Amino acid sequence: MFSTGFRDECGLMGVWNHAEAANFTYLGLYSQQHRGQEGAGVAAYDHPGGESTAFMRVHRGMGLVADVFSGFDFSRLPGRTAVGHVRYTTAGGNLACNVQPFVAELEHGSIAVAHNGNLVNADSLRSSLISQGSIFSSSSDTEVFLHLIARASSNAPMSERVRDAVRQARGAFSLIILCRDRLFAIRDPHGLRPLCIGRLGESYLFASETCAFDLLGAEYVRDVQPGEMVEIEAGSKLISHSPFPVTAPSPCIFEFVYFARPDSDVFERNVYPIRKRLGEELARECPVAADIVIPVPDSGVPAALGYAQASGIPFELGLIRNHYVGRTFIEPKQAIRDFGVKLKLNPIRELLSGKRVVVVDDSIVRGTTSRKLVQHLRRAGASEVHVRISAPPTTDPCYYGIDTPTKSELIGSTMTVEAICKFMEADSLGYLSVAGMYRAVGAPQDSFCDACFTGKYKAGVPDDFEGRPRGLQILE
Amino acid sequence: MFSTGFRDECGLMGVWNHAEAANFTYLGLYSQQHRGQEGAGVAAYDHPGGESTAFMRVHRGMGLVADVFSGFDFSRLPGRTAVGHVRYTTAGGNLACNVQPFVAELEHGSIAVAHNGNLVNADSLRSSLISQGSIFSSSSDTEVFLHLIARASSNAPMSERVRDAVRQARGAFSLIILCRDRLFAIRDPHGLRPLCIGRLGESYLFASETCAFDLLGAEYVRDVQPGEMVEIEAGSKLISHSPFPVTAPSPCIFEFVYFARPDSDVFERNVYPIRKRLGEELARECPVAADIVIPVPDSGVPAALGYAQASGIPFELGLIRNHYVGRTFIEPKQAIRDFGVKLKLNPIRELLSGKRVVVVDDSIVRGTTSRKLVQHLRRAGASEVHVRISAPPTTDPCYYGIDTPTKSELIGSTMTVEAICKFMEADSLGYLSVAGMYRAVGAPQDSFCDACFTGKYKAGVPDDFEGRPRGLQILE
Amino acid sequence: MFSTGFRDECGLMGVWNHAEAANFTYLGLYSQQHRGQEGAGVAAYDHPGGESTAFMRVHRGMGLVADVFSGFDFSRLPGRTAVGHVRYTTAGGNLACNVQPFVAELEHGSIAVAHNGNLVNADSLRSSLISQGSIFSSSSDTEVFLHLIARASSNAPMSERVRDAVRQARGAFSLIILCRDRLFAIRDPHGLRPLCIGRLGESYLFASETCAFDLLGAEYVRDVQPGEMVEIEAGSKLISHSPFPVTAPSPCIFEFVYFARPDSDVFERNVYPIRKRLGEELARECPVAADIVIPVPDSGVPAALGYAQASGIPFELGLIRNHYVGRTFIEPKQAIRDFGVKLKLNPIRELLSGKRVVVVDDSIVRGTTSRKLVQHLRRAGASEVHVRISAPPTTDPCYYGIDTPTKSELIGSTMTVEAICKFMEADSLGYLSVAGMYRAVGAPQDSFCDACFTGKYKAGVPDDFEGRPRGLQILE
Amino acid sequence: MFSTGFRDECGLMGVWNHAEAANFTYLGLYSQQHRGQEGAGVAAYDHPGGESTAFMRVHRGMGLVADVFSGFDFSRLPGRTAVGHVRYTTAGGNLACNVQPFVAELEHGSIAVAHNGNLVNADSLRSSLISQGSIFSSSSDTEVFLHLIARASSNAPMSERVRDAVRQARGAFSLIILCRDRLFAIRDPHGLRPLCIGRLGESYLFASETCAFDLLGAEYVRDVQPGEMVEIEAGSKLISHSPFPVTAPSPCIFEFVYFARPDSDVFERNVYPIRKRLGEELARECPVAADIVIPVPDSGVPAALGYAQASGIPFELGLIRNHYVGRTFIEPKQAIRDFGVKLKLNPIRELLSGKRVVVVDDSIVRGTTSRKLVQHLRRAGASEVHVRISAPPTTDPCYYGIDTPTKSELIGSTMTVEAICKFMEADSLGYLSVAGMYRAVGAPQDSFCDACFTGKYKAGVPDDFEGRPRGLQILE
Repeated sequence: MFSTGFRDECGLMGVWNHAEAANFTYLGLYSQQHRGQEGAGVAAYDHPGGESTAFMRVHRGMGLVADVFSGFDFSRLPGRTAVGHVRYTTAGGNLACNVQPFVAELEHGSIAVAHNGNLVNADSLRSSLISQGSIFSSSSDTEVFLHLIARASSNAPMSERVRDAVRQARGAFSLIILCRDRLFAIRDPHGLRPLCIGRLGESYLFASETCAFDLLGAEYVRDVQPGEMVEIEAGSKLISHSPFPVTAPSPCIFEFVYFARPDSDVFERNVYPIRKRLGEELARECPVAADIVIPVPDSGVPAALGYAQASGIPFELGLIRNHYVGRTFIEPKQAIRDFGVKLKLNPIRELLSGKRVVVVDDSIVRGTTSRKLVQHLRRAGASEVHVRISAPPTTDPCYYGIDTPTKSELIGSTMTVEAICKFMEADSLGYLSVAGMYRAVGAPQDSFCDACFTGKYKAGVPDDFEGRPRGLQILE
Repeated sequence: MFSTGFRDECGLMGVWNHAEAANFTYLGLYSQQHRGQEGAGVAAYDHPGGESTAFMRVHRGMGLVADVFSGFDFSRLPGRTAVGHVRYTTAGGNLACNVQPFVAELEHGSIAVAHNGNLVNADSLRSSLISQGSIFSSSSDTEVFLHLIARASSNAPMSERVRDAVRQARGAFSLIILCRDRLFAIRDPHGLRPLCIGRLGESYLFASETCAFDLLGAEYVRDVQPGEMVEIEAGSKLISHSPFPVTAPSPCIFEFVYFARPDSDVFERNVYPIRKRLGEELARECPVAADIVIPVPDSGVPAALGYAQASGIPFELGLIRNHYVGRTFIEPKQAIRDFGVKLKLNPIRELLSGKRVVVVDDSIVRGTTSRKLVQHLRRAGASEVHVRISAPPTTDPCYYGIDTPTKSELIGSTMTVEAICKFMEADSLGYLSVAGMYRAVGAPQDSFCDACFTGKYKAGVPDDFEGRPRGLQILE
Repeated sequence: MFSTGFRDECGLMGVWNHAEAANFTYLGLYSQQHRGQEGAGVAAYDHPGGESTAFMRVHRGMGLVADVFSGFDFSRLPGRTAVGHVRYTTAGGNLACNVQPFVAELEHGSIAVAHNGNLVNADSLRSSLISQGSIFSSSSDTEVFLHLIARASSNAPMSERVRDAVRQARGAFSLIILCRDRLFAIRDPHGLRPLCIGRLGESYLFASETCAFDLLGAEYVRDVQPGEMVEIEAGSKLISHSPFPVTAPSPCIFEFVYFARPDSDVFERNVYPIRKRLGEELARECPVAADIVIPVPDSGVPAALGYAQASGIPFELGLIRNHYVGRTFIEPKQAIRDFGVKLKLNPIRELLSGKRVVVVDDSIVRGTTSRKLVQHLRRAGASEVHVRISAPPTTDPCYYGIDTPTKSELIGSTMTVEAICKFMEADSLGYLSVAGMYRAVGAPQDSFCDACFTGKYKAGVPDDFEGRPRGLQILE
Repeated sequence: MFSTGFRDECGLMGVWNHAEAANFTYLGLYSQQHRGQEGAGVAAYDHPGGESTAFMRVHRGMGLVADVFSGFDFSRLPGRTAVGHVRYTTAGGNLACNVQPFVAELEHGSIAVAHNGNLVNADSLRSSLISQGSIFSSSSDTEVFLHLIARASSNAPMSERVRDAVRQARGAFSLIILCRDRLFAIRDPHGLRPLCIGRLGESYLFASETCAFDLLGAEYVRDVQPGEMVEIEAGSKLISHSPFPVTAPSPCIFEFVYFARPDSDVFERNVYPIRKRLGEELARECPVAADIVIPVPDSGVPAALGYAQASGIPFELGLIRNHYVGRTFIEPKQAIRDFGVKLKLNPIRELLSGKRVVVVDDSIVRGTTSRKLVQHLRRAGASEVHVRISAPPTTDPCYYGIDTPTKSELIGSTMTVEAICKFMEADSLGYLSVAGMYRAVGAPQDSFCDACFTGKYKAGVPDDFEGRPRGLQILE
């Protein structure tokens, strides 16, 4: 996606029984950096002299994985088990206290929790915990899990305490929970967010995406299943629990459209061929006579390749991305046409001049940036600009872990496709149909969560859309 | 004190009902910086539109007050009530998560706690709270108070909740607790640490030392009494509670000997004349024929003046302190004689040459630095060096808020005065007696805590001297 | 290029007669960030009240343009003329004092110099200037120009002083020199490095690559010609001088192969189609029966597209690049196979599995990284791996502004193509011929500098390959 | 001095022939930190394999010595000779490029220059050098010396080149110049600024003040004499040159009044007893009936002691200084009386209440701060406030190395003593006479530079008071 309308969610990593658990966790996060650039952390559990000496250490910080661990000495995070997290970027609320994994010292040992997703009942759980005397140190949904586990009956085995805690949560949650003598990997009953299991010799690895296993030379075993709670302890056998009532799975289809790395498997499918097929289906559904097909780099490349191959129109890299562009730059006072777009993407005039161009992207959020891009291509010489989107119109916000604009800000919600085309001043605009998207994924319709395209929120909506204003703020 | 054997404790500041509550709190901390250089913080409560909109904000950081608030915009901490804290320096355990005030969002509003002192039952309270499901975010004693208040019956009025919480604590605690609609200022029943009440027009101020009131132009009203819990709310009347069983007060006598600023009042007595009288009593108890009296600057100056005036021996500034010396410097590989001492203190040869010198300090901790100082004075030409200490030998560690070496490290505990004198290679050594110290203070013997000189721990000793090793560490 | 064997050179930007000269210069550098990531700077000349008040200001710093100017207020760089520079990365010698533009206060006003290239007689010029009493404040070639201009006869017009200075230099130099009342844009007689002239209304712009003009909405006028010295003054007319003896131009052909952005024009040719044609020629010269063509992203994409189109073999994005990988990461102690390659590039197994793969890159430097890549592709399932390089073997170092390994480190210099193929364990290896490269560029052979492929150093070699060790080092 | 009207000048340190030359230089600067807090640097010359391998390295930075060298590894500054500098604080013009020592690579080896003082012909020398083609990299006077030496005839021996260079300078300069094989220590013919020679075994040390020798355990040999150029080379014998015409010496008397550390010797006299005698003379010249004498700490302490001893009035520490006050703090919006004074100095009410107080300071600059102090003492209860200044009225600015306000800003220049007393609302005001000051110093009148008290500028005034505005600014 070219525009920054959707923000990345989070990435998880866990390592069980490896001499370099913390370092491997860090590397697994490195390869999943695209899932979150705000903060990163790794917690490791050490047992230098058996259980009685068990000790957990955590290092966390704001920024990219490379920055947080710049010059870090991993001998400071000893132990054979570890869990890590990369956090997504939110506008403004960047707080050091929200960087995961969350850790706490409980009665029977310390615990670390890493979480990808969003709860729809976080506010009510939080309120209830506060009224019972729990003290929150962050504004994150994830801390709720810590408190629920801390308050679960302390005589019960840890697996029951964790089970009782996660049963209270509603919404999207893939979790890795590291305890003194065991690790849990859990997906909510809808399986909204991914979580994969890998194996490397005697070690088990857990990651949001399989690209982490590729980097570490590990073998991809299978996914944690929707609604499954995997437990692993000393003998390193995986024990599967089913803490939740049986529910029809609905993993997030947007992982295929945009989020996941094309070389990853998520939900037990490889992303790249799906992304290409999205383009192929799009070519079938929305054909057009044109001279070249160009992608909006980088994320639009596979779909554009698919479109080009299916349509027989040549693929060209007509837009060059400036990879050095960060989030901020200083604009001149005097307006420059299409400035924001141009800073990131520059068209190759010689290629576009006089050509009928199909430009393939994966989504249109507010429409303003896409509009500028169309004008920009036209000024670079394109005689016709046909916009093709390798997904249906985005009509509804996500409540399950992806940071989206509100419904009223989504152009797909407020305008018809014709109106959007006119607004963008494109010669034509085509979106892939919901059916086409499912064909590309190779799955029966409705078998994924497609709420952002259909408004069908299978895992519920937040308790309270407004939210009770919180009464405390840490200034940084 | 010249050597750094004792570390400063903490300083508190609170402001009730002033338009610049946060800025005044910051300035009050500025004037009490000598009580803690590790970290500083201010929390302020705002009520822009009445109680329903009450909102607390906090800014904290590591380092000096001037650094933490460098360039800070106090309009970010609006509101008419505020509480602040400066933290003492510990070796190694400098953690951002321990910087006060501690804050939490409770059921009926946010709360901030600032604490000076040390609990002797902190470990058992913490263990018990953890076993009930509380999650600690720091390694500080102070967080215990937050959890105790959070868990107190939520139907009771706040004054009862706070009362029930503080009743469970044993040891030393001066506290300022800021709630949505009221503020509490509390001293433990022994009154170990100071806490003063000031007034400025319609505003009330609370501070560890009165020098904060002097800076702000406020009038010193009285101390919070040992065992008293002062409550102040909307009408700005002080309500006095007595939550603790009646106990004989025993404030820390070491505040007079070393900690407090000489211009401050603590425990309703001005420090400077007491410090001078310590020198006068010392001159009477340990006279010596000499040519000049010199202080170990800066803290030894008033006692040396007292010694000089009582003995008739001229006072001279024979040692010059380098105020730019920080905690670290790079030593040369090749040993330089008396290097550590010389870097901080340089004798004036012309003054000392051939003279019989009385050098007055307030304490000897391990003895090694004092020994170097004696040699240093001798090499600068002093014909005789007579060491006089304006307090009794320090024989026992403090468990009530002052960071001291262990008993076995204290030279006053392991050697006789004669042996210390011989070790230091001084011509004579004299300490003030306990009785002389009380005479100087003007109080009956035993009416203060003098545990560091006598080993009488009136407020008990820690539950468990070793301490259970904690199972969690945040790396920074 | 995937490996980091060659380092980027520098980028220049100049603005004449624009109200936002400094901000536009900064933006021009932003778009040329790929030409240098070590440091950046902008100097602007202000004439608030006519010539007598002329004043130059400069802001420079280490790091990316976005970092150096983060939060910068461009009203601190007023004036209608400006010059800027981005610096390339060198190993170790990153010194703040080397960040350009270089500035000096001369007798008739201040001057700023920005330089792309390397002089072959820098050491002898420097020695001679030092022996005349000049004091250097950097270790950069560029400072030589400042001193030569400063020492030129002060009665002569500035254009003569500049002319006399640049005439003494040998090697590669594109220069922008900003004086009080005029600006000079100069290319060495071989025209080794690019420098383009753009126009925006009444303003003239100068840049290494035309992508800067695209961003600013300016029109590309023409190149500063090899050996040309363009002067512009108050009336904003371009005056062309020819300070050098007539020389056959030999611009750097490597700009087309690797350095320049594909959307830029350099040497009055658009890069993208040339880069594609390099792939097309390569397909003709080195055909192979295969199933897919994949690029080494990002720089290999256009050549791979050309290869695919010319050969009819489908193009696929078989390697996914992790754009978050910076220069440093912490390796695990336990070796991971192909670790360095994998961190940056991950193959898509599903795509490669069982396929005969052509992988297209633009160069092989030392060969070790390319070797790992071949193994990596093979382990990802490729049945055959055919390496195709869209340029001839790199056999010789560059002395004209590109930081290359020494001759003995270049695998193209020490091994035959067959030996390299065997070393890399590829099924076949094909390089483009020198003739093919010129065909792709569309220029007669020998009309460019191709020294890195042929060893023909048309602009000479450095005076003294060893260099006299300098006697001074600034530690940072 | 309490107020900050005068700013510290600079401090020098040099070490010849010691295995830890750089570390010793750093320590010597540490002990002279009071002479300059803006920046610090050390340059060391190494000769690992004889003269042909001679190599100079320098480390410099902004801030205190402890900050600049925090964590610095002195093995990076090898060699047996070194020179260092601490810089004074100027308002605004804090530039990294001005931090000394200044270094340059000259034809016959690198050179480092450290300078204390100010030239009165710096602007004309600079102009002349620029017109000859020299390029300045700083705005400091000191750089002039580098250029003059660089341009001196290169066939002459270094001692002649240095001699010819320094002969061109007018004004105040104490210099240490470190060359490849020798070191020069030079004082201007008036000997305005101090420079001392020390000895430690086979090593020679050079410092502005002898406190540096005390720290390092070195013996104070003698001063570099006014107009002397001391040269030291391989045999470590001191060679004395006399490059200047014979001139009556006039060292800066203000070093005794305020600048130097009381434990130092400057101009071959110990400071502390002089500073006490200034107080004694003051007591004789300006007696008053009073109850206590208090100093303005810290600098006023010795004079106040002298006043007390001579007058028989008891000395008390009536004002407590907050040593943590840095240059910046955030003032409240609502005015607090005497705020700026109170933040730094707090009176002890119990001591002052109802007392007739003599307050001793070393100077009054603008008068506003002193006025606030008088009011502050009065509000603290003093029944009478008698101000005594241990020097004559400051009537004229210094052009010889001390940063003073302009003449019109000096209250001693614009008001009579009576008017100042009235302005300050003191009960009486007494200054020491010029004659009294010389008596205290023990020197014939007119034998020192007393221009700040008399306006007699024996070493001339600056060429051009306004100064030509420079045409170049480095933004930081």
